[in-house]
Amino acid sequence: MKSLLLVAHGSRRESSNREVRTLTDRVRERAGGQFEYIDCAFLELADPDIPSGIETCISAGATQVKVVPYFLSAGRHVAEDIPAAVAEVRRRYPEVDIVVTPHLGAADAIADQLLALSVD
Amino acid sequence: MKSLLLVAHGSRRESSNREVRTLTDRVRERAGGQFEYIDCAFLELADPDIPSGIETCISAGATQVKVVPYFLSAGRHVAEDIPAAVAEVRRRYPEVDIVVTPHLGAADAIADQLLALSVD
Repeated sequence: MKSLLLVAHGSRRESSNREVRTLTDRVRERAGGQFEYIDCAFLELADPDIPSGIETCISAGATQVKVVPYFLSAGRHVAEDIPAAVAEVRRRYPEVDIVVTPHLGAADAIADQLLALSVD
Repeated sequence: MKSLLLVAHGSRRESSNREVRTLTDRVRERAGGQFEYIDCAFLELADPDIPSGIETCISAGATQVKVVPYFLSAGRHVAEDIPAAVAEVRRRYPEVDIVVTPHLGAADAIADQLLALSVD
């Protein structure tokens, strides 16, 4: 069973975390059966953290977890912190396929999104 | 003459700032005549800052500057800092139409981008 875990940085401002949860709802609506379980987690400052988020996917029956970093830049968080958190869970669940995808900023269509925002 | 100024946060890591400049190149390639001048600027930690970025657009002949916040969350930077920087320039160039667009995280299609990243 395939699952997607959107991973955001997390903020002290609850409204920012709520934006991520609202986005996760939108991803659920748009997934069209691509994933049977979709949730979000946070690198820091908000709950659930990444290991807990992955474990929730597994508890829901996931045999594959796609971890999608909701980050614009390939900084330390994307390059090191998220893979480290994932690796720790992977050791405990060797039977589950846990994959980290490219981060949002790497998406080809971001340039088009920026242009779309600036249409009159 | 219409111009677009992509505004990112800016980072101490030059590679992150370079990602923004590369993205700006991609926006230029995709703009298809929608804007005659396209550049980027940074809220902090990198050059040019927002007022300098807008002034470069105006020097290039822009009568309209669309400022597009390359931010995921509607936090203080998007809600206050960018509008404040823009307002300061607007006072000095009342004849130029300087508009701040919604931030990237507000784009409807972001959910689809996240799903596209997670395709096998």
